Amino acid sequence: MNFEQVTIVGPGLLGASLAMALRNRGACRRIVVWARNPERVAECSGLDWCDHADHSLEKAVSGSDLIVLCTSVESIAALIPEVISLSAEGSLLTDVGSVKKKICQVGEEQGGKGKGTFIGSHPMAGSEKSGMSHARPDLFEGKPCIVTSPTNVPDSLHRSLHDFWERVGMKVHDMSAEEHDRCVAHVSHLPHLLSSSLAHCLDEINLDWRSLCGQGLRDTTRIAEGNSDLWEQILLSNKSNVLAALAELESSISLAKNYLANEQGSELREFLETGVHFRKSLNATEE
Amino acid sequence: MNFEQVTIVGPGLLGASLAMALRNRGACRRIVVWARNPERVAECSGLDWCDHADHSLEKAVSGSDLIVLCTSVESIAALIPEVISLSAEGSLLTDVGSVKKKICQVGEEQGGKGKGTFIGSHPMAGSEKSGMSHARPDLFEGKPCIVTSPTNVPDSLHRSLHDFWERVGMKVHDMSAEEHDRCVAHVSHLPHLLSSSLAHCLDEINLDWRSLCGQGLRDTTRIAEGNSDLWEQILLSNKSNVLAALAELESSISLAKNYLANEQGSELREFLETGVHFRKSLNATEE
Repeated sequence: MNFEQVTIVGPGLLGASLAMALRNRGACRRIVVWARNPERVAECSGLDWCDHADHSLEKAVSGSDLIVLCTSVESIAALIPEVISLSAEGSLLTDVGSVKKKICQVGEEQGGKGKGTFIGSHPMAGSEKSGMSHARPDLFEGKPCIVTSPTNVPDSLHRSLHDFWERVGMKVHDMSAEEHDRCVAHVSHLPHLLSSSLAHCLDEINLDWRSLCGQGLRDTTRIAEGNSDLWEQILLSNKSNVLAALAELESSISLAKNYLANEQGSELREFLETGVHFRKSLNATEE
Repeated sequence: MNFEQVTIVGPGLLGASLAMALRNRGACRRIVVWARNPERVAECSGLDWCDHADHSLEKAVSGSDLIVLCTSVESIAALIPEVISLSAEGSLLTDVGSVKKKICQVGEEQGGKGKGTFIGSHPMAGSEKSGMSHARPDLFEGKPCIVTSPTNVPDSLHRSLHDFWERVGMKVHDMSAEEHDRCVAHVSHLPHLLSSSLAHCLDEINLDWRSLCGQGLRDTTRIAEGNSDLWEQILLSNKSNVLAALAELESSISLAKNYLANEQGSELREFLETGVHFRKSLNATEE
């Protein structure tokens, strides 16, 4: 099913890219954008992917059958009760937050009751650049999107949300909020923290050495350029899972360090080979 | 100055790419290739970047004014005495090894004495793919090359070696062998070990989670796909410098871990910001 009117709450990189993708694919009739800042409201009003922009949440949500919360991960849970209270019965609410447990708890507690129903989403698309000015309609294409599996939600709404993300080009996976948070701690938050730690450690080196940094280091540290405010929030929101994943990584680093220190060549080679194996298995999941 | 005849000792990724680049740019009159394996000798003989291939080191070196050792890093030091003893007075020997101290020590001890003169090189070009089949003539273009600064070497030979690497498109830097090894421990070997450790740690995750690995993780682990035999040698050859760099990285990881565990948001953000600063400084060195 297509949605008639979609409200995008927060036109940042993800929100604005989503609006662009919806417009390009004709996936809904009308797109309403909510922004807190009046200047941003005025800016959005002039754009072809925005039929109406408002800084009143009540007006922005009114008449929408899908509301997508695209604000920063730490603000989403706080917004949910208000947005649900303003939403119409039968409407669907979702979000784009990259940590899901707390958001989904709030959403499930507040949903139903003659108002809209919340199901969490995590479209795994992004960039080391943030903000509306970096938005692009193909941001979601071919990327995975996790839809959380809530209890007590009509199947039809769950299917609609699947269809919605598929319409903007995503590959949708179902997962519980808890498993989602453990998974992204490993495949997204840990690599980020590691990339940042490497970049942090190397910020000491002099200009001569910097000029010798090759593609390997550039690739390894690319994501360390990501927005610090955003990543501070993400890491803190998923603290216990990230710390658990980091402990696993520290074990791997210790192994490598001991093999190297003791010149255990064949063990070191086997260690490296395990890494090759993992990386090749990622290539195999690429299309 | 152009060299008349260049001998490439070992036609792997770097050796074969170098021969291709020399041929394309007309940087020498004749290219001779030495390979240990008779099948490889036969294979090279038919290629347009090889005027003569031989498995006799004596024949391959004879008449060359430049000899470039392109075998694996652990075999270069062992080859140097023999190659120097076969070389003509006034000829120049260099190599492509990624760890320099031991190689340069052997080269300096053995050089001169009415034979060729050794100066170490490290063209910082490569790929996660190895072997002749991945060779390409533009491998070196725009990449940095370190030329070690030996004592007791005529300036003219030093300048010739600079010119040589510039002819294949490289940006040449001078550095002592010791500083080179400390530098690459930080900007190349440490990122590799870290990328491998992350990939090693994540090799445990299931297929569902693997399908959610995004571009960030792919970039962070790309170099972990590098040849394990080669990297075992590199890491062992530069053991003490790599362990020192790893200790610095572990301090950075510990900092991040404590900020996260104690929910010190502003300190965590500042830590991430230092990483952003480093990464942006790398962009600034790009052309």
